[in-house]
Amino acid sequence: MGRALADDRALEDLVELCDDIGHRLSGSPELDRAIAWAQDKMREHGLKNVRAEPVDVPRWVRGHERATLLGDPDRPLHILTLGRSVGTPEPVEAEVVVVRTFEELEAADVTGKIVLYDAPFVTYGETVAYRSKGPSRAAEKGAVGALVRSVGPDSMDTPHTGATRFADGVTPIPAAAITIEGAELLARLAERGKQPRVRLDLGAKSEGTVSSANVIGEIPGREKPEEIVVLGCHLDSWDVGQGAQDDGGGCMMALHAARLIGTHRQAPRRTVRVVFYTNEENGLAGAKAYAEAHGSEPHIAAIESDSGTGAPAGLRADIRPESERESVFEALRPYAQPLQAIHAGGLREGYGGADIGPLAEIGVPAFGIDHDTTEYFRIHHTHADTIDKIDPTALRWGVATMTVWAWTLAEREAAVIGSSTLRGRQEE
Amino acid sequence: MGRALADDRALEDLVELCDDIGHRLSGSPELDRAIAWAQDKMREHGLKNVRAEPVDVPRWVRGHERATLLGDPDRPLHILTLGRSVGTPEPVEAEVVVVRTFEELEAADVTGKIVLYDAPFVTYGETVAYRSKGPSRAAEKGAVGALVRSVGPDSMDTPHTGATRFADGVTPIPAAAITIEGAELLARLAERGKQPRVRLDLGAKSEGTVSSANVIGEIPGREKPEEIVVLGCHLDSWDVGQGAQDDGGGCMMALHAARLIGTHRQAPRRTVRVVFYTNEENGLAGAKAYAEAHGSEPHIAAIESDSGTGAPAGLRADIRPESERESVFEALRPYAQPLQAIHAGGLREGYGGADIGPLAEIGVPAFGIDHDTTEYFRIHHTHADTIDKIDPTALRWGVATMTVWAWTLAEREAAVIGSSTLRGRQEE
Repeated sequence: MGRALADDRALEDLVELCDDIGHRLSGSPELDRAIAWAQDKMREHGLKNVRAEPVDVPRWVRGHERATLLGDPDRPLHILTLGRSVGTPEPVEAEVVVVRTFEELEAADVTGKIVLYDAPFVTYGETVAYRSKGPSRAAEKGAVGALVRSVGPDSMDTPHTGATRFADGVTPIPAAAITIEGAELLARLAERGKQPRVRLDLGAKSEGTVSSANVIGEIPGREKPEEIVVLGCHLDSWDVGQGAQDDGGGCMMALHAARLIGTHRQAPRRTVRVVFYTNEENGLAGAKAYAEAHGSEPHIAAIESDSGTGAPAGLRADIRPESERESVFEALRPYAQPLQAIHAGGLREGYGGADIGPLAEIGVPAFGIDHDTTEYFRIHHTHADTIDKIDPTALRWGVATMTVWAWTLAEREAAVIGSSTLRGRQEE
Repeated sequence: MGRALADDRALEDLVELCDDIGHRLSGSPELDRAIAWAQDKMREHGLKNVRAEPVDVPRWVRGHERATLLGDPDRPLHILTLGRSVGTPEPVEAEVVVVRTFEELEAADVTGKIVLYDAPFVTYGETVAYRSKGPSRAAEKGAVGALVRSVGPDSMDTPHTGATRFADGVTPIPAAAITIEGAELLARLAERGKQPRVRLDLGAKSEGTVSSANVIGEIPGREKPEEIVVLGCHLDSWDVGQGAQDDGGGCMMALHAARLIGTHRQAPRRTVRVVFYTNEENGLAGAKAYAEAHGSEPHIAAIESDSGTGAPAGLRADIRPESERESVFEALRPYAQPLQAIHAGGLREGYGGADIGPLAEIGVPAFGIDHDTTEYFRIHHTHADTIDKIDPTALRWGVATMTVWAWTLAEREAAVIGSSTLRGRQEE
C-alpha cells in the first residue's frame, strides 16, 4: 500500500494509453494497438503468462451524425449517436414528442414521430434505462427515431453516448443522445406550443464481427497457483474522448496492483490474474468469452474498477447467496482496516462490475472498487473523458485499494469466501 | 425593488429571445429579427420613443472549422474559430510550438509553425490577452496559424470563441480557440518529445459591412427629460449557444428596470434610456455610433450589465477623474442600502462595460452590475451559453439592482456626479 502511494507510474502509463493511442472502440485499429501495447506493458511490469486471448467482437462505426431543429433558420443540435444504433439511409424528419417517463410514452401517440426522452438525471443506474431501453420501446410504439437526454448530472452542451439495445422482434430505429441543453430546448418549445420538428441524419452502421482479444497477465501464486483472483477492467472505450476514466484508469489500477504484488518479497499464496477485457461498452463479448474459457478454473474472487478514478471509499461486494453476505463482510472487514488510512476501508453491498459479471453469475465473489463518481458521471462517455480530468492522488488511492484487496484475497488462508467459490457452485 | 423580485417576466422574455431567435451575431438574420422583436417588447412594456438607430457593422461568417492532430490515425481537435479570423484558402499544416506566455513566444522560433498559447485561466481580464492579441503577435513572428487555449476555468471539451485583433501592418493568420483538453494534449505530446503536427481548415470570412441598429426606448423624465441615464447591454452575441448570459440577460435587466420605473406612480426626474447596443462582440460599432450620435446630450450616468446573470454584489463604478471616486462613492452609498437586503449593496471601483465605454471615455460616470461570474466564465462564448443556465432568482436580483440604481440616478436631486457629467467634460 505504501508503495502504491509513493509514485505516479500508473498515471504515466495512462498518459501513454490516452495520448499515444486515444479512444479504443471495439473493432477499431486503436483497440488493436492498445492490445499490443498492453501486452508489452504487462511484460515490462513483470507479469507472467502474458497473452492475448482472441474474442470476436462487433464492429460498429459511428459515421456522420447531425440533428437539426427545423425552422427559420435551422439550428444544429449537438448529439452523439448511441452505440449499436442503426443509421438513416435517408435523413428522418419528424415532429418531436417529448416524454419524461416510460408512463408518458405509453400514454402518447408517437407513430411516425421522433420520441425525445427528457428524463432528468437521478442516478446513473436509474436514469440510464431511458438510454438502454428507451429507443426500443419507442420503436415498438411506432416512432421513427429516438433522442435521449444525455445521462449525466450537468452539461456544457455535452452529449453522452452509450449503448442501446433493441428487444427481439423490434425493428431498430435511429437513436442518439442529445445534450441536456438541446433536450430542454425541445421540451420548452413543445410546452409553449411551438411544436419542434427535427431532422436526424446518422451514418452509423454495424460491420459484422471482427477479431479482438482479452489481454491477460499473471503473478503466479506460490502455493496454490491454480486458484485465481481476477483483477479486471476493460481496455475498450467509446469512440470519443480518450477512455481515460472509462476504463483506462481501472486497467492501470489492475496492472499496477499486479506490478506491486509481483515485486513484493514473495508471491502471494494464489495467482493474481489481470484481465483487460475487450468489448465491455458494446457487447460484453470479452467478459462472456473469459467466463466461457476459464469458468471451470477455481476463481476465489474477482475485483474490478470500472467507475472512474475518483477517490475510492472501499469496495462494493456482490456476494451470492445474499444470506452469506454478512458473514463474508465480517470475515473480510479486518483486512480493510489499513485502507482506512486513505479513507478507503469501506465494504458495502453493491455491484462488482460488468466484466466480472459473468463470473459473479456463476458464484464468484465479485468486488468493485467503490469510487466517488461525482466527476465521473459528468464526463463519462463524452469527449471530455480525457487524462487531464484524472486526480493523480485519487488514482494512487485506487491503485492502493486494488493492491491491498488483491493481496488479501490471494494470500488469505481460507480459500473459500462464504460457500461461493466458483468450484463450489459448479459442483452443486 | 419589491416588484422586481416578485415575478419572472424578465426570464419569460429571455426565453423568447433565446428559444425563438437564438444566437445573434452582428450582420446575421437572427440579429435583425432580434432588433425587430426588441422594439416590439419595448413598446409592449410601455417604453416611449422606441426606435432602431442604424449602425453599420462588420459581417463575419464562421463557415466550417476543423483542426486535426495528424498521426495514425488522425484525431479531431475541438475548436471554435476566433471572431474576425481569416480562413484558410488551403488547409494549413504545420508543427505546433507550445508557449505559455508572451515571453516564451519571444524566445521561440515560430516561423512556419502554428503557435499554441497554452495559458491556464487566471482571470478573464488577465488571460484573455492571449486570445485578443496572441494571434497577431504570433503572426508578427512568422507563424502560419494560431491556437489559443480556451479562456475559461474548466471544460468539458468546450471551446470558447471570442474576438481577436491583428495589429496594423500585420498580415492576419488563421486563429482558433482550442479546448483546454486539446491544448493540454498538444502540450503533453510536445513535452514528451512527440512533436505534434496540426492541420487547420477554417472557412471563416469577412463579408464587408452591413446595416444593423441600436434599439432604444425611454421612460421620459418628469422634470429634466433632456438629462439621461442610460441602461445599456448588447443585443448581439456570438454565433454559438443562445447568448443567454452574454448578453441577453443584461438586456432583460435594462428592459425590465425601465418597465418597472415606467409603471411607478410617477416618472423619475430625468429620462431613463434603455440602449440595446449592436456589435459589442466583434467591433463595438454600436457603442461608438451611440456616443457619436448622442454624446453631446447630457448623460448623468450609464449602467450596464454585461457579465452574466449571476447574483449581483452591487455596482462596479468607473468614475473619472480618479480623485473624485471616493467622494462619489460617499454620496452614492446611502442609496445602495436597500439592495443589501439581497446582498447587492456593494459599490467598488471597476469596469463599467464595453458598450458604455465610449461614454466613460468622455466623462460619463459608468457603472457595471457586479455579477458573480463563477458560472459565467465557464460558459461564456460557448455552445453552453443557453437559457437553462440562468438562475431565475439571481436574474430577479439583477433586475432589482438595475432598477434601484436607474431610479436613484434618474431621480436624485444633484445632477452632477462628481464633476464628471458629460456636459461638464465637454465644456472644459
